[in-house]
Amino acid sequence: MTTYADVLAAAGRIHGHVLRTPVLEISPGLFFKLELLQHSGSFKVRGAFNRILSAGQVPDSGVIAASGGNHGLAVAFAARALGVRAEIFVPEVTSPVKVSGLAALGAHVTQTGAIYAEAAEAAAKRAAESGALSVHAYDQPEVIAGQGTTGLELMEQTGGVDTVVVAVGGGGFGAGITVGTSGGASSGGPRIVAVEPERIPTLRRALEAGRPVPVEVSGVGADALGATRIGGLAFEILSGPRVESVLVSDEAIMEARHTLWERHRVAAEPAGSAAYAALLSGVYTPAPGERVAVVVCGSNTDPATL
Amino acid sequence: MTTYADVLAAAGRIHGHVLRTPVLEISPGLFFKLELLQHSGSFKVRGAFNRILSAGQVPDSGVIAASGGNHGLAVAFAARALGVRAEIFVPEVTSPVKVSGLAALGAHVTQTGAIYAEAAEAAAKRAAESGALSVHAYDQPEVIAGQGTTGLELMEQTGGVDTVVVAVGGGGFGAGITVGTSGGASSGGPRIVAVEPERIPTLRRALEAGRPVPVEVSGVGADALGATRIGGLAFEILSGPRVESVLVSDEAIMEARHTLWERHRVAAEPAGSAAYAALLSGVYTPAPGERVAVVVCGSNTDPATL
Ligand SMILES: Cc1ncc(COP(=O)(O)O)c(C=O)c1O
Ligand SMILES: Cc1ncc(COP(=O)(O)O)c(C=O)c1O
Repeated sequence: MTTYADVLAAAGRIHGHVLRTPVLEISPGLFFKLELLQHSGSFKVRGAFNRILSAGQVPDSGVIAASGGNHGLAVAFAARALGVRAEIFVPEVTSPVKVSGLAALGAHVTQTGAIYAEAAEAAAKRAAESGALSVHAYDQPEVIAGQGTTGLELMEQTGGVDTVVVAVGGGGFGAGITVGTSGGASSGGPRIVAVEPERIPTLRRALEAGRPVPVEVSGVGADALGATRIGGLAFEILSGPRVESVLVSDEAIMEARHTLWERHRVAAEPAGSAAYAALLSGVYTPAPGERVAVVVCGSNTDPATL
Repeated sequence: MTTYADVLAAAGRIHGHVLRTPVLEISPGLFFKLELLQHSGSFKVRGAFNRILSAGQVPDSGVIAASGGNHGLAVAFAARALGVRAEIFVPEVTSPVKVSGLAALGAHVTQTGAIYAEAAEAAAKRAAESGALSVHAYDQPEVIAGQGTTGLELMEQTGGVDTVVVAVGGGGFGAGITVGTSGGASSGGPRIVAVEPERIPTLRRALEAGRPVPVEVSGVGADALGATRIGGLAFEILSGPRVESVLVSDEAIMEARHTLWERHRVAAEPAGSAAYAALLSGVYTPAPGERVAVVVCGSNTDPATL
């Protein structure tokens, strides 16, 4: 299981490659961790850099990932920064804008398969042939440790909080933050409110079943939170006692996104707004005096839709 | 002349009413002060709160200002927060969106006059009749001291910089920051790069003439940087030895605005992008190792135009 020491080591490894994203206290004791200002527009570069830099020597065939979304952008960004080759597999439905965004970062893009799972399968096959280093979107220890550096930072920047509210898809981010905010204590650390769209309840269903199980994926968060099941490594961590699972409606997510722009001038994508939605819609209500950090984690969005 | 002690007093007065906006180090030694995340979308609330809170008792007729832009929004925001009446005069050309934005903040809006100067004249007349407290957009000591708290914060947050790059319209913001970053030293403090659009060079022309003189106003910055002359109080400060005047083209401003969004996911209005334009376009080039803070100061913009 990923440890606090792993997160600290990741922080050292990726230092200088990622931004220390700012924290904004929007009202007394309520903090936004503005991780959407991260390179490539989401936290995903933290895990990508940590995975690649942990590998020692990257093979000549470079790194490989399957994702038309934030993970793909992050792997392409990290590969370019480190001067290694990146091959990104995306399904045929991926929009031309996203494909050209990846290409602009210098990635070699392969469009194949009707759905994501087919693109991922093709990527795995290709990696086996070429020996390229595969970077998973959430279910690798180095990826979880990298994402966890967000948690380290926010504890330092806020001087500590009681609760961290974070969006969960495959669970790498939430799991990393759970470990990264623990301060190394075997128990204790802030409560983690793990927020999922009602229409993609990967963690909720896994908690009910006692193990990762597949779910149907739909709704406004599908492009970024649309893992079909929670990652096994993430589940080990997110099934712990500090974690509380909550669900938010698509309407609440879009309302939170609108409020983030109108009131706070923060331009987030739906997945990046899910955590705040849990507060705004009241599915999580802090106690008086409770110090809460909300992680606003993605901004890869068309600003015209704000 | 506004002193460092005035800025410190302002900071104490407005504490809890304004946000401590975050700083983002986008590359080693290059900082964005994200003042566009401030309440009402710009730094203008700092001056507005300080002016109103310095008045002791606000008359029943409340506060009054002339501005269809960020200053009007800020005065309306501050008045609502403090529970006082706000009357905002705007010219007839002001867009319905801006008028309704002011009304949504509870302000009483009067649309009068073909141009801004006529609205301002009507506001002055009205203030003389009603006894309302007038809040100037830049040329009042309390306003300059309030804006200067941005400078205090950024020195603390960055641990100190060699240079601050800031947009200048009427000059209240730049003047406040000049004082607020001085640390109270009678000389010294960081260099202040005062950035104006080529098409609204109020400070530049005043420096050439040795006194504030009227200029023609046009271009993309006109709605926020379009004072027709530099304020007299601001000019006293901005004509000092620490200040360097630079001009940027409208194209450079729009290019910087685009880059702020594309690369940094910061959604700024043109005036809020002018300071960064000075760096990107090379009209100000930092020396190797120079620590530079760029103040990104306004976000009241239609995100569809990013
Ligand atoms: C913006 C954003 N938020 C949250 C997530 C969820 O992260 P994870 O899959 O690690 O739970 C993602 C995943 O792509 C994302 O892009
Ligand atoms: C976003 C923004 N930047 C800069 C300025 C210029 O401020 P000042 O008039 O104090 O120089 C303004 C003034 O309205 C503004 O709204």
